[in-house]
Amino acid sequence: MSPSSSDPVFELHRGGKMAVAATVPLTSREDLSLAYTPGVARVCEAIAAEPDLAAEYTWIGHTVAVVTDGTAVLGLGNIGPAAAMPVMEGKAVLFKQFGGVDAVPICLATQDVDEIISVVTALAPSFGGINLEDISAPRCFEIERRLDEALPIPVFHDDQHGTAIVVLAALRNAITLLDRKIDDLRVVVSGAGAAGVAVTKMLIAGGVDAAEVVVVDSRGIINAGRGDLTPVKAELAAMTNGSGRSGGIADALAGADVLIGVSGGQIPEAAVAGMAPEGIVFALANPTPEVHPDVASRHAALVATGRSDFPNQINNVLAFPGVFRGALDARATTVTDGMKVAAAEAIAGVVADALRADAIVPSPLDPRVAPAVAQAVADAARRDGVARVP
Amino acid sequence: MSPSSSDPVFELHRGGKMAVAATVPLTSREDLSLAYTPGVARVCEAIAAEPDLAAEYTWIGHTVAVVTDGTAVLGLGNIGPAAAMPVMEGKAVLFKQFGGVDAVPICLATQDVDEIISVVTALAPSFGGINLEDISAPRCFEIERRLDEALPIPVFHDDQHGTAIVVLAALRNAITLLDRKIDDLRVVVSGAGAAGVAVTKMLIAGGVDAAEVVVVDSRGIINAGRGDLTPVKAELAAMTNGSGRSGGIADALAGADVLIGVSGGQIPEAAVAGMAPEGIVFALANPTPEVHPDVASRHAALVATGRSDFPNQINNVLAFPGVFRGALDARATTVTDGMKVAAAEAIAGVVADALRADAIVPSPLDPRVAPAVAQAVADAARRDGVARVP
Repeated sequence: MSPSSSDPVFELHRGGKMAVAATVPLTSREDLSLAYTPGVARVCEAIAAEPDLAAEYTWIGHTVAVVTDGTAVLGLGNIGPAAAMPVMEGKAVLFKQFGGVDAVPICLATQDVDEIISVVTALAPSFGGINLEDISAPRCFEIERRLDEALPIPVFHDDQHGTAIVVLAALRNAITLLDRKIDDLRVVVSGAGAAGVAVTKMLIAGGVDAAEVVVVDSRGIINAGRGDLTPVKAELAAMTNGSGRSGGIADALAGADVLIGVSGGQIPEAAVAGMAPEGIVFALANPTPEVHPDVASRHAALVATGRSDFPNQINNVLAFPGVFRGALDARATTVTDGMKVAAAEAIAGVVADALRADAIVPSPLDPRVAPAVAQAVADAARRDGVARVP
Repeated sequence: MSPSSSDPVFELHRGGKMAVAATVPLTSREDLSLAYTPGVARVCEAIAAEPDLAAEYTWIGHTVAVVTDGTAVLGLGNIGPAAAMPVMEGKAVLFKQFGGVDAVPICLATQDVDEIISVVTALAPSFGGINLEDISAPRCFEIERRLDEALPIPVFHDDQHGTAIVVLAALRNAITLLDRKIDDLRVVVSGAGAAGVAVTKMLIAGGVDAAEVVVVDSRGIINAGRGDLTPVKAELAAMTNGSGRSGGIADALAGADVLIGVSGGQIPEAAVAGMAPEGIVFALANPTPEVHPDVASRHAALVATGRSDFPNQINNVLAFPGVFRGALDARATTVTDGMKVAAAEAIAGVVADALRADAIVPSPLDPRVAPAVAQAVADAARRDGVARVP
């Protein structure tokens, strides 16, 4: 794919998609003496004496770093830091557009887990939060966990939790429409990468019965008897699949109420046909859903995808701008499960009064979403005791 | 110093001094599909195939990181990364205001030389250049040298070279006014920190006779006979002081034509009085010059300081925005001595037609400076063979 001057995508991207702007005047000597030397020295001294003031008197109170190592960019795989930059810039401008969060794309020239953790730890005083992006599994789990433990600011891997939050939001509205209860559902998650692991945990945090969740990876149903499990999958095996099912995707789906596809692997129509009546299918792989929505609709009552050209788009942009806006507003030290569940409830709530089978989540452009999510997340941060401002 | 809501400096700094802005529309589904998924994937693929395209199709073509470890912030010393942020933000907005360069402040939570180099190397794909700032000497020399060797983008420690460029600019105009020749001058540099070392090298690169330069540190004149020299000072001793002078500042100044004070240490009037007639004194320490300009004027024909409330302010903002604008425009791989000398000539040239003893350098707010510097620096990059665009 070579750039062409008549190609609207390349024309749009010429020069990048973002800029920095001063928010103070800089046109007179007096301006300079306040914003820079000598005036600035007094602000430095105040922060040196009380480091918490940095959030109030510098831009870190409203900034996040969007950090990637370029190992799992969109569906393109390990394309490295330079080629990842257009996605990180896109993410950054979405942060600004929807959450009013000033985001800086940081693409790292290392794919070593320990070095990524060192680098992000060293950078952390420059930002109010860290959004990890497009880092391959299972490395992403260790990187997020260790950074979250090390840093006093929110660390959030969007490919995991952003997806999981929006899935939970959509599921809540789906079962309201179908008059089902969340703890009665049998759920199959197809895929045990970043999104699959986080979706599984989020659904359980949101009320799904862990024993009734079955996770399927490329080798079949995950259960405690398998000898080929990574630590993260072993954790899933211990947590889910209470009846010890085994087999493939068709075995998992037989009689299931919900299918969440986050694998990209194709699922045969016959397997979907084996689900219980009034089923729910979220086939989220992009651009090719695990099962085409037209096919899924033959067997399920409610269908969602990751695509903008079908109804019910499960789009992370419904979550991450508001999650960070709320976390920054509360100066949260971390992002708790309670904050994520609150974000999902807020997203679901925006369209709760106008639920339809083809509108179980808001449009990605709905301006009501991010403020509602931000408020819910900040409130949850305070409830969970991780907020630094009341 | 505690913040007060009636204090204009703290009021100005509330919320910080900068923000990120999208430069593309993001209000329709079509906008999102071009700027983000699915359209963005094609730009990623193009850069993956040809990494040089990142400078054209992402914001790195016009961005720099302003990197500090907080070890030598203004005159405040080692106040750490959080307290350094107001200065780095100030620097960033000056980059934008004067050079149209999008600068991101990066304050590092490490003061280990090797780790700083690792971290900045890992960050480098995210930026078009690295401006090092307020890093203590002699660590700053090694950090800059090793980063410059490692990275394919300009690395520039402004406390060294920004100051040195403006000093050379001011000196060129001073000797024009005084009808002196640069290679006839006897020059004393008081201070052998970041600025002193760079000023010494820059003056020599700009035509001053190295043998006629004497550098003085807190222990006296630097000469090859001293046993207490750091590697950088030993290099200065070998390069300068051709007649092997020794002693203190008064010995150095006896008969000298030029004094450049970049130490902060006070210089007695009697020592300044020993300079040759028609002397030049740049007393650049801020806020307290090495010798008060009123005192210096009793003995010297031309006086400059670092302060905005006296004539002839030697202010780095005359250099760094244009230097990086020019380096980015040429996609230079480094900043050569030729580029620095060209920057100094361009700064001097802006006021060459209207030279006065109280106007040997342009005002920091003069809008003609940065474009002239940028053009001169880009041209020099091409002459020196370090430009990647013709």
